[in-house]
Amino acid sequence: MKILVIGATGEIGRAVVKELASRHDIVEASRSNSQHQVDMADAASIQNLFHKVGPVDAVVSAAGDAHFGPLATMTMDQFQVGIRGKLLGQIQLALIAQHLLADRGSITLTSGVLSTDPIVAGANASTVNAGIDGFVRAAAIEMPRGIRINAVSPTILVESLPKYGPYFRGFEAVSVSRAALAYSKSVEGAQTGQIYSVT
Amino acid sequence: MKILVIGATGEIGRAVVKELASRHDIVEASRSNSQHQVDMADAASIQNLFHKVGPVDAVVSAAGDAHFGPLATMTMDQFQVGIRGKLLGQIQLALIAQHLLADRGSITLTSGVLSTDPIVAGANASTVNAGIDGFVRAAAIEMPRGIRINAVSPTILVESLPKYGPYFRGFEAVSVSRAALAYSKSVEGAQTGQIYSVT
Repeated sequence: MKILVIGATGEIGRAVVKELASRHDIVEASRSNSQHQVDMADAASIQNLFHKVGPVDAVVSAAGDAHFGPLATMTMDQFQVGIRGKLLGQIQLALIAQHLLADRGSITLTSGVLSTDPIVAGANASTVNAGIDGFVRAAAIEMPRGIRINAVSPTILVESLPKYGPYFRGFEAVSVSRAALAYSKSVEGAQTGQIYSVT
Repeated sequence: MKILVIGATGEIGRAVVKELASRHDIVEASRSNSQHQVDMADAASIQNLFHKVGPVDAVVSAAGDAHFGPLATMTMDQFQVGIRGKLLGQIQLALIAQHLLADRGSITLTSGVLSTDPIVAGANASTVNAGIDGFVRAAAIEMPRGIRINAVSPTILVESLPKYGPYFRGFEAVSVSRAALAYSKSVEGAQTGQIYSVT
């Protein structure tokens, strides 16, 4: 398969590339440091990426940030960080990819454990992750030409503990290589509309 | 209790007012046709509403629309209808209300069954409703001064079947008076972080 990995330079993206590269033709994209650049907030940038790389069978997104901070002082501008970045960026990718992927291709988005297991300072991520899961369940029943769509919803990664550990006390961290297996299941399996929880 | 009902002229809002009015002091607000006007997309308009009506113990939101239409042709502008209208409008209300409600007050938002049980043409509503549920679960653990927050997630209403029935084949519709009971449970009960499903 030819697989486009967006967010390929991030912790998860690198692990997904490593997991899939021995069996597939991987095309890497990210905001700035990959072979191909893409701005997920810009439809033209996403369309341009697909046209540059030619027909692909699967697209994996591990891109998009959320805002972490106290609810008491959260502003709508802060809230938009996750809405624009992680939620609408990935949804825009899916809306475009449904038309450009090969028949029986697949789309794999990234949500996260906070959708159902919230932490203090995580309201933006909880909203965004739950929204992605809701979108995936719904989009799966309308995808054309046998195209599938799933989400991977990982808990905190071992590799992210230095930065995010204090937010996630009591969560059992998973290695990013274990999270990457769920992306493999989504891309190389046959299910659709699934939220692959990695906890 | 003094209870502010936003979206008071809608199908659900009217039923909530009817359910609660015999036991509480109800203040009605909506975009245009109520005693008080409010634009949920405008923070100043929400703040102004709270300042006009004075201290309230509970706010109920049954306001905000989503876009219904095929995924194949869905544009980001269409997608924003639900994001701005139903998701961010209600979140903005909660972010403001956390500071203005009376101690041990409550916030009740409205999501909907499509969060987990999708229909064709409902991807925007599924995303938005799931996002509201995620927000409520997370916001509940950070609310100050004993303030609670819940969502009511109704299925298709009997009263909405003329307009939305064809989208919801096979769904068992509930009467709006039954849905209103869940708002009563949220406002007059003591739980927080709950998604009260009415199906």
